Amino acid sequence: MGEKYDALLARLGDIHNLNRANAVLSWDRETQMPPDGAQARGRQMQTLSRITHEMFTSDETQRLLEEAEREIDGADYDSIPASMVRIVRRDLQEAVKVPAQHVSEFSKLTSDAHHSWIEARANNDFSHFQGDLERIVEMLRQETEYLGYADVPYDALLGKYERAVTTAQVKELFDGHRQELVELVAAIQSVSGRVDDAVLRQHFPQAGQDAFCRKIATAVGYNFRRGRLDVSVHPFSISFSNKDSRITTRFNDIWLSPALFGTLHECGHSMYEQGIPDEISGTMIGRGTSLGVHESQSRTWENLVGRSKGFWVWALPLLKEQFPQQIGDITLEDFYKAINKSTPSFIRVEADEVNYNLHIMLRFEIEQQLIHGQLAVKDVPQAWNTLFEESFGMLPDSNTNGCLQDIHWSMGALGYFSTYALGNLLGAQYYNQAVQDAPSIPSDIENGRFETLLNWQRENLHQHGRKYNADELTRRVTGESMQSKPYVAYLKRKYSEVYGL
Amino acid sequence: MGEKYDALLARLGDIHNLNRANAVLSWDRETQMPPDGAQARGRQMQTLSRITHEMFTSDETQRLLEEAEREIDGADYDSIPASMVRIVRRDLQEAVKVPAQHVSEFSKLTSDAHHSWIEARANNDFSHFQGDLERIVEMLRQETEYLGYADVPYDALLGKYERAVTTAQVKELFDGHRQELVELVAAIQSVSGRVDDAVLRQHFPQAGQDAFCRKIATAVGYNFRRGRLDVSVHPFSISFSNKDSRITTRFNDIWLSPALFGTLHECGHSMYEQGIPDEISGTMIGRGTSLGVHESQSRTWENLVGRSKGFWVWALPLLKEQFPQQIGDITLEDFYKAINKSTPSFIRVEADEVNYNLHIMLRFEIEQQLIHGQLAVKDVPQAWNTLFEESFGMLPDSNTNGCLQDIHWSMGALGYFSTYALGNLLGAQYYNQAVQDAPSIPSDIENGRFETLLNWQRENLHQHGRKYNADELTRRVTGESMQSKPYVAYLKRKYSEVYGL
Repeated sequence: MGEKYDALLARLGDIHNLNRANAVLSWDRETQMPPDGAQARGRQMQTLSRITHEMFTSDETQRLLEEAEREIDGADYDSIPASMVRIVRRDLQEAVKVPAQHVSEFSKLTSDAHHSWIEARANNDFSHFQGDLERIVEMLRQETEYLGYADVPYDALLGKYERAVTTAQVKELFDGHRQELVELVAAIQSVSGRVDDAVLRQHFPQAGQDAFCRKIATAVGYNFRRGRLDVSVHPFSISFSNKDSRITTRFNDIWLSPALFGTLHECGHSMYEQGIPDEISGTMIGRGTSLGVHESQSRTWENLVGRSKGFWVWALPLLKEQFPQQIGDITLEDFYKAINKSTPSFIRVEADEVNYNLHIMLRFEIEQQLIHGQLAVKDVPQAWNTLFEESFGMLPDSNTNGCLQDIHWSMGALGYFSTYALGNLLGAQYYNQAVQDAPSIPSDIENGRFETLLNWQRENLHQHGRKYNADELTRRVTGESMQSKPYVAYLKRKYSEVYGL
Repeated sequence: MGEKYDALLARLGDIHNLNRANAVLSWDRETQMPPDGAQARGRQMQTLSRITHEMFTSDETQRLLEEAEREIDGADYDSIPASMVRIVRRDLQEAVKVPAQHVSEFSKLTSDAHHSWIEARANNDFSHFQGDLERIVEMLRQETEYLGYADVPYDALLGKYERAVTTAQVKELFDGHRQELVELVAAIQSVSGRVDDAVLRQHFPQAGQDAFCRKIATAVGYNFRRGRLDVSVHPFSISFSNKDSRITTRFNDIWLSPALFGTLHECGHSMYEQGIPDEISGTMIGRGTSLGVHESQSRTWENLVGRSKGFWVWALPLLKEQFPQQIGDITLEDFYKAINKSTPSFIRVEADEVNYNLHIMLRFEIEQQLIHGQLAVKDVPQAWNTLFEESFGMLPDSNTNGCLQDIHWSMGALGYFSTYALGNLLGAQYYNQAVQDAPSIPSDIENGRFETLLNWQRENLHQHGRKYNADELTRRVTGESMQSKPYVAYLKRKYSEVYGL
């Protein structure tokens, strides 16, 4: 572009490189680090975080940004330079809103809360976590004032994880499909005996699962020259550049689903990052646009593709080759039903497509009430159980399997959960659009040709990186804002077939 | 200590953390990174290097150091604070001597030279590398002026890799044992048929080698809770803290020695780093003192222990358990001879204990002549071959197997090689002292009790980190400066036995 813009890019490049270096340290910690290395690693990562933050919020960066803004003034909104300064300006404004003192106190608090939460969960003793959660809610309320919000304080927390999404918008989306999900769950439960997943719950040696996961990952388009697959306690994907985006999975010797669908899920995230164009890779707009849009990609490959009948038209013969003894005799129909067995669970991370969003809505409701002072922390267990019963028709057997199950609150990450549900909704919206634009996608999937869908994602979603927020992107791609209808329609169609409703 | 000293430590801690973060990125690059990740990784590492250097040489660090120096003035030389400011002052003085412009030009040059060296070596065409090597020598001469030297310019290059060691000192050490090595090599060659290593050159499946390497690594004292063993093209060890010091090895399916002795070698390096006390780990004096002393530790475990008969009294039964078909019938005596077979080779990295230092002396001679303008780069192949024949009685069959074999010159690392030979010498000196202090060491080794030796190393060497330079440390431990006699005596004793001389 020009000299000022280049100077800004150089500065941001340094910041990006430090940030990604920290990501390498994080990946190493989760997958490779020897057990005693944790303490020093913590110090290394803290130093990197702090210096990255200091460089980003420094007067120098502010100055370079202002100069670049003047230099490229008038550039087309969609151009890389205009998008770059727009997004960086926004990131910077947000990065300086919360005082360093608050950030550091909050970090100390959540570190303590992590331990009290672990103990509370282990002993089914909410009171052990209550004090820390009270302080977290208190500090988050304070943070919403620093951050500012248009309508209600909870907007500020939502915005930390999904920019430009409001509480009212999420509420409307959730209200728009909650009742239908509750009814679908109940309808499935009334005929639950129709689907059996015993076939998935046999002994599947890890080496065979690993080989098969690599095969389907490669087939759907995950590029192993630009990534790798490792094992970790909690599966995740992480990107150091568009040419080094890694995934992890976990193996259960007597249950096939976790590795299979976990791998496809992380492939979806990582193929998004591998699809970032070279022109913006290594810059601050060179990654997925938001948590919700990211989740739409993982859910697409995990569920819309991976749990579709068409996918298994292609994949089941390969899986039979891998595990002839275990599944040599299974029919496509029965396998398809097995992988789509729907059962309400106390635990969110075990929830299937039908139940999942209901778990999120419950958390969304409780978090709002906490932040808006309508619910005291001490009353969370009761509120949780009441809401849970309304959704699933049963009561959690313990707080451990209820309001203590997730790590998020101990991290202070109120506002985060909604992005999971938005990902489900967006996934269905985008997929519908993709099939409308490229009608051969379903039949291509049956034939193991996944590039039709992936190319559509590359072209319509991945190529933009962070140039647009989720809503802008969704309107560009589908002509509409976020919707819950496509997701509900998909669920009804699919589960009516699976359960013969 | 005091407020100023603590402020200095905090600053240095940040610098250390960034430096070690870069080491994690380097380890990942060599052992884990997918092939296409290299370019972005290069940028990340460059940014980290530059920022680390900028922070270390900044006015802020200088100011904190001066204040800390005033605060702790008069502290005991051996104390941690006095050592810290002394070593940091020295590091800092050296870090600012070479202008940034020179460093960056040199970095560009060696990056080009790396490619021209690879091509020259592949095509046995020295002329392809000659121009870059000429520029490297030219820039290194300039660098010696920046760095300063007491006697001759080459002192400055030696000092980059082994502080406070002079050309005259190394020359005296090398001259003091060169002739004896030449004679020993010749004597062994005259009876070379007496030792056969065919037993080591059979098919040894990698999984079995890996299992055995882990067993002996654990036995000698390498702590896997504080490290891990991976595979890389060139074995190395690297430390992120005293609780995370990793090693790599390589496996050859039809030759047992590389993995076996390579692993013990890297264990020696890494046990040094694992032995750094907690009080100084994470600080700038919290690592091995120098390349030569480091190499003394790796050589001790690889050769003085790993190639001793006593070690195999303990280890051979275990190896036979691992590979009963291949070596079930071998006697201790024959195995001991096989692992100590000595054959002159064109290639330094294949050289055994007897030949090794002669390879180094050759390079020491040529490097001095280059830097002191007594040899033109174009004449290096001829000079190499002449010197090689004087040492080994044979001529290299090509420049590829002669003056083009090592990567070091393309990296501009003239001055580095000597530390390998010094490591051999120091290893023997320290080991003699250890046995004098703890006479049970040889019999303990026969019984698989390696902690007697390791504890001696911990107490006499490792605990000091970088508080002393190699000469100070050696005098403290042995009462003498570096000597070649113990190493030569060891070689003569051992090889007289092995070859019946």
